[in-house]
Amino acid sequence: MRRGFARAEYEARLSLAQARMDAAGLGALLLTTEPEIRYFSGFLTRFWESPSRPWFLIVPLSGKPIAVIPSIGAALMAQTWIEDIRVWPAPDPADDGVSLLAATLREVGGPVGVPSGAESVLRMPLASYEAVKSASGLLFTHDHGITAGLRAVKSEAEIAKIAHACAIANRAFDRVTEIAREGRALSAVFRDFQRLLLEEGADLVAYIAGGAGPDGYGDVISPASDAPLVRGDVLMLDTGAVWDGYFCDFDRNFAVGAASGNAGLAHAQLAEAVQAGLEAARPGALACDVYAAMAAITGAGEGAGRLGHGLGMQLTEGLSLIPQDRTQLAAGMVITLEPGVTTGPGTIMVAEEDIVIREGGAQRLTRFAGAALPVV
Amino acid sequence: MRRGFARAEYEARLSLAQARMDAAGLGALLLTTEPEIRYFSGFLTRFWESPSRPWFLIVPLSGKPIAVIPSIGAALMAQTWIEDIRVWPAPDPADDGVSLLAATLREVGGPVGVPSGAESVLRMPLASYEAVKSASGLLFTHDHGITAGLRAVKSEAEIAKIAHACAIANRAFDRVTEIAREGRALSAVFRDFQRLLLEEGADLVAYIAGGAGPDGYGDVISPASDAPLVRGDVLMLDTGAVWDGYFCDFDRNFAVGAASGNAGLAHAQLAEAVQAGLEAARPGALACDVYAAMAAITGAGEGAGRLGHGLGMQLTEGLSLIPQDRTQLAAGMVITLEPGVTTGPGTIMVAEEDIVIREGGAQRLTRFAGAALPVV
Repeated sequence: MRRGFARAEYEARLSLAQARMDAAGLGALLLTTEPEIRYFSGFLTRFWESPSRPWFLIVPLSGKPIAVIPSIGAALMAQTWIEDIRVWPAPDPADDGVSLLAATLREVGGPVGVPSGAESVLRMPLASYEAVKSASGLLFTHDHGITAGLRAVKSEAEIAKIAHACAIANRAFDRVTEIAREGRALSAVFRDFQRLLLEEGADLVAYIAGGAGPDGYGDVISPASDAPLVRGDVLMLDTGAVWDGYFCDFDRNFAVGAASGNAGLAHAQLAEAVQAGLEAARPGALACDVYAAMAAITGAGEGAGRLGHGLGMQLTEGLSLIPQDRTQLAAGMVITLEPGVTTGPGTIMVAEEDIVIREGGAQRLTRFAGAALPVV
Repeated sequence: MRRGFARAEYEARLSLAQARMDAAGLGALLLTTEPEIRYFSGFLTRFWESPSRPWFLIVPLSGKPIAVIPSIGAALMAQTWIEDIRVWPAPDPADDGVSLLAATLREVGGPVGVPSGAESVLRMPLASYEAVKSASGLLFTHDHGITAGLRAVKSEAEIAKIAHACAIANRAFDRVTEIAREGRALSAVFRDFQRLLLEEGADLVAYIAGGAGPDGYGDVISPASDAPLVRGDVLMLDTGAVWDGYFCDFDRNFAVGAASGNAGLAHAQLAEAVQAGLEAARPGALACDVYAAMAAITGAGEGAGRLGHGLGMQLTEGLSLIPQDRTQLAAGMVITLEPGVTTGPGTIMVAEEDIVIREGGAQRLTRFAGAALPVV
């Protein structure tokens, strides 16, 4: 499968952004985070793991985006479709991009829209941000959710990348019998599962979670313990594997040795809830409708937590399947369906699948787990 | 090797922070990022990969830290030494922790110190931050670099974890002959090298970079291409592998098939520069002194870029080995030595090793590469 995007993809993203900027009365967008900068530029590197240097992309009301970045990134940025690349020798304790960014923003003109709403982060020191605001003399305001709104609806090329990441993880899940069995430590299973994902083609394994215990697990965010798997445990593995900058995010449950009746019933109920979510996830439906369809099966009511979310350049992004989220689904949105059930005191079981909203209804991106709880 | 830290470690961190807060006239520190929150709480999870929810830790002038976090994290936070854990059902579009955080801050009292200097990020939406400031009625100011300053000097327990991560990567580098050879794609080598790191015991491979080309590579941040390795290439692999939340960060160079004389000379010069950096890195020396010692060997002058940095809970953190950084080295600081040389038009070679500053001088955490360029 081909990496990257055709130039027309970036041109389309830019053109849509500029139309919304015009409507919102913005002269520029100031972007500082990895997915936001990559969305408009194609700049893909794992170097973001280093927090030392701020990076900036300015989307002007007309014309192509302008990169204002540390000189270490100049060569790689020059391989993207961005032409106006301005660099400074970062890190510079005296002026870490502040003057260059302020001067560039002055040239472009404001008001400057900065992502400020749910999930957004300003990836630069607060003191530098205040200095840029002051030095530019421009009005800084929120970005009206423009970047998040565009990112929520995926192109066919983006959907293909997510589907590719899902297929990699599907194949790795098929091989869990190779690595998980009674007596093996959960930490060893986590380590081996990451290896399987890489062998099946993941560029990196950005996220892995899971749990194991009789009839279920306590939560889905704890690191793996060194405790061995015990016959009768339910093992869950959840992964955010990445291919060409796009995530999958789904999980699988397994019975260790043999399944209890309780766990088997819970697994079947989760499959039923996922199916109900799939059927509810049609264009025009609201995020809370999909939530309700799944909660009706699991009987979770209002306290069920989040039963899914948007997916793409980040492990979770955009809408939440919760009662309060009235985001309207549209064709091209990629979301996860993630119902959970309580299986005992302090234990839960959680399913997760990935789907894309299509005109006629939703389409599966993962090979759904099915009702029967597999045994390892 | 034992995971986690003794409770006394957290008590010592807190006590040092509170002494500095007192001197700076702060009533509270407000922390929002993964390493800052983990430093004072021990809260370790890969769930930070999801940007959906903000997390907060408040360090009061007296008493233990207070966690203000999404309810999904309550069970895991309860396993740390933190006792006062306040939760809200995130994500909540109407009030995503703002009221709870503001109320808790009011109870603790200000002024509230927020990390605002170099490398810092406020991991919460700007709009929420403004709302918290307004709702709390407290004075918000910078944190006087207190958290970054404490984190720069590692305890013996922290140094042991970094050394453990380094030992894992040393073993993986020893096995590069298994995965790298003429004709193999660089992208396949990257994938396999991550697998080796996991097999040797890494919890995760947070960072990998590298390059390959005749006599060197163009930069050190590009993703791997699918182009096959060619006889005469210099292959570089650089990794930030993680064990129990602590990073190593170092690289190795290899000649594919056979080394050119040029590459061999460059490799020997890099080894010499690293040795000069090691000898210069004594307590009382300045970061710029270590830079100068290495730059004198490589002849890089002022344009050499950054020749190393602090290392610990993040791939890069704290000081920079650059001419402008006058940070004084102290026993317990862990840094990388990362000299580079130009080997041709647009090609460089870069070495990197990890060391810890001790009273008598610096100690190696990595098994230094040596002068001879190994062949694969």
